[in-house]
Amino acid sequence: MEKRKPFIVIQTDFGKGIAVATMEGVIHDVDPDLTTFDLNHDVTPFDTYEASFCLYYTVPFWPAGTIFISVVDPGVGTDRRASVAKLSNGSYVVTPDNGTLTHLAKYIGIDEVRTIDEERNRLVQTKACSIFHGRDLFAYCAAKFASGKITYEEVGPAYDPAEIIVHEMIEPKVVDGTVTGMLESADRHFGLICSNIPHEMIGEIGVRYGDWVRCVVKHGEDTVFDQAIRYEKSFGYVERNEIFAMISETLTLQIARNFNNICDAYTFGSGPEWTISFTKKGE
Amino acid sequence: MEKRKPFIVIQTDFGKGIAVATMEGVIHDVDPDLTTFDLNHDVTPFDTYEASFCLYYTVPFWPAGTIFISVVDPGVGTDRRASVAKLSNGSYVVTPDNGTLTHLAKYIGIDEVRTIDEERNRLVQTKACSIFHGRDLFAYCAAKFASGKITYEEVGPAYDPAEIIVHEMIEPKVVDGTVTGMLESADRHFGLICSNIPHEMIGEIGVRYGDWVRCVVKHGEDTVFDQAIRYEKSFGYVERNEIFAMISETLTLQIARNFNNICDAYTFGSGPEWTISFTKKGE
Amino acid sequence: MEKRKPFIVIQTDFGKGIAVATMEGVIHDVDPDLTTFDLNHDVTPFDTYEASFCLYYTVPFWPAGTIFISVVDPGVGTDRRASVAKLSNGSYVVTPDNGTLTHLAKYIGIDEVRTIDEERNRLVQTKACSIFHGRDLFAYCAAKFASGKITYEEVGPAYDPAEIIVHEMIEPKVVDGTVTGMLESADRHFGLICSNIPHEMIGEIGVRYGDWVRCVVKHGEDTVFDQAIRYEKSFGYVERNEIFAMISETLTLQIARNFNNICDAYTFGSGPEWTISFTKKGE
Repeated sequence: MEKRKPFIVIQTDFGKGIAVATMEGVIHDVDPDLTTFDLNHDVTPFDTYEASFCLYYTVPFWPAGTIFISVVDPGVGTDRRASVAKLSNGSYVVTPDNGTLTHLAKYIGIDEVRTIDEERNRLVQTKACSIFHGRDLFAYCAAKFASGKITYEEVGPAYDPAEIIVHEMIEPKVVDGTVTGMLESADRHFGLICSNIPHEMIGEIGVRYGDWVRCVVKHGEDTVFDQAIRYEKSFGYVERNEIFAMISETLTLQIARNFNNICDAYTFGSGPEWTISFTKKGE
Repeated sequence: MEKRKPFIVIQTDFGKGIAVATMEGVIHDVDPDLTTFDLNHDVTPFDTYEASFCLYYTVPFWPAGTIFISVVDPGVGTDRRASVAKLSNGSYVVTPDNGTLTHLAKYIGIDEVRTIDEERNRLVQTKACSIFHGRDLFAYCAAKFASGKITYEEVGPAYDPAEIIVHEMIEPKVVDGTVTGMLESADRHFGLICSNIPHEMIGEIGVRYGDWVRCVVKHGEDTVFDQAIRYEKSFGYVERNEIFAMISETLTLQIARNFNNICDAYTFGSGPEWTISFTKKGE
Repeated sequence: MEKRKPFIVIQTDFGKGIAVATMEGVIHDVDPDLTTFDLNHDVTPFDTYEASFCLYYTVPFWPAGTIFISVVDPGVGTDRRASVAKLSNGSYVVTPDNGTLTHLAKYIGIDEVRTIDEERNRLVQTKACSIFHGRDLFAYCAAKFASGKITYEEVGPAYDPAEIIVHEMIEPKVVDGTVTGMLESADRHFGLICSNIPHEMIGEIGVRYGDWVRCVVKHGEDTVFDQAIRYEKSFGYVERNEIFAMISETLTLQIARNFNNICDAYTFGSGPEWTISFTKKGE
């Protein structure tokens, strides 16, 4: 029996539309047997930190061997590296090396990384265009690799994974009864504001479901949110419009507002400039 | 020849993005031969009435046997039932039992319904998370069922379909030359405001294409819209920017605005608090 | 070996949601072996010029033989033609004949065009509905054709491709050191404003990467944008927030703003009312 070809899962900051459809066309023109999926096309334009988190959120749930394409690429057309990383779980990521691999390098591990050889693995008919590597380089190269037309070695020359560009991250920690970390994501659609604080840490300061905590979010020195909220299991345990803390899908702490969108009342972002802390409220 | 595995069609209120992509990853990890589709990921967050209508709008056009997943789930993590309903047309719906099955129960019929056995049919590695049953329970269970790894009976214990939670609905009726019903949907993208009044009813009050009707929309006691409009076959029969009534895709009465979006000028919603009536204008 | 069935790639102005999902249901109900993709569902409602450009942008990158469905259809239910065009590259477009074929006719070529026979190639159960040909006519007919249930001839009677309805277009030209053309697209998501001026024309007025040009955009007689900007290879060569000109994905000239969205500061549209010019700045 023939070996199944790996899935291709695509992320961009283009919005779902003609640019993505054109990438899919290139892929199916290389090999009509490939199967493509959308990861997320609404990454905030140019935001490589968000792109990195989104990959980390999704990658562990796809079969080993899946090939992810991520094109959030403010440096397109410059000499930033265009890369294919081989993850420790057996999957691959085709992406500009610009911070997009931060979370995967930290939490999953990258065994090997190669620069795409543009001479061999780029569409030729659009050579005059320097701004759409998503179509001309990343989709085309990923399709050749997924289809088996080239091996991983034939993607291009390897470089040291230690050279991969990563974003600064603030490590979560417990100090004097307060847990502190950073905002990993701020979902404007649904209003889930997720930190990088492992959920076990809130137990370390003695907080249980139903307890009240003081939650503070800062953007640099500015306090964006400072409120006493409950820590609960899920939405159904709090009042309508109540803001509360819970365990997120990535098993970290997050906050949200029941039957409402916390982003309508507060402006949140993600990355190391955004810190969040939880302190148990006195008895 | 091997029997084709049923399609999986997914609806959520998450927005199309990483949460949906993760559900798809879980499904293809259970069985890479399954095929997934998007129904609608822009259901108004927490709005189980809208989720119910969207299923009803779509389900009849998919092959019998299709497995729908619907995750609009304000009660996630509480003891609301997580269910798989078997429809009279042979398709299935995997959903929290929270009103999402209202229209299907009423218009298509539900032959059987079962609670998902979380012990057997839930992802194990994310047990600490109580807020993402879309990924951990509904997608995983649907994939096991669609792939044939479990039978319908093995989903979990059956319960009486009469116990299914349904939303109140206002029955359309004709009284003294006026047809009255409720708003079933209010499409903010395109501006189609659809009622549950069967198109034949407007004939009962003597209205034909080209006639003028008085159309009144109320939200509770508040009149949101009250205007004389034409009843026409389609957009091409009225002026630019004209508001008019027509037969909707679900063969009920609806209103819209030609080359414009009626939702930019009026705020409409759906559900039993929203009534709509049509009266023939005097000769 | 059985011949592969052609892909179906769908474009609408419906937004991605229940209407599109219903079209896909119809297609897979006709033939579950067909494969469907999204082109773009966020075409500005009723904008057949934009629909035309989006097809042209995408079609060349999909395998020959692909069947595109485009439903931007302000004349639905009137006697505008419902057509299937056979392109010179071997692909097909199923669409209302309302201007949507403009760019394909001009840049790729249309070998043959047929009107869909509604008696034979329309869903029967929704005959009372005149407003959703996307589902009832275009998706259904495209699926029958893609599946091989009907031949191209059986779609319906042929008519002269010269009768195809096309939008007026402004030809790009060089006069007295100024290149002038029209706006082909204005991407509100990412902020790429693309003209129909072939990139070689800017060379004809002596402009090289790094040079300054005066760029003027007009909507009719109104000047919407008038600024000296640089012509560069890509985003990475200019400052943050700098507006600049570059070669687009379609190898024409376009403007954008680095790490920002030019559409937040200026209102752009597309079509023959929107002209754009570039003049080399004096030494």
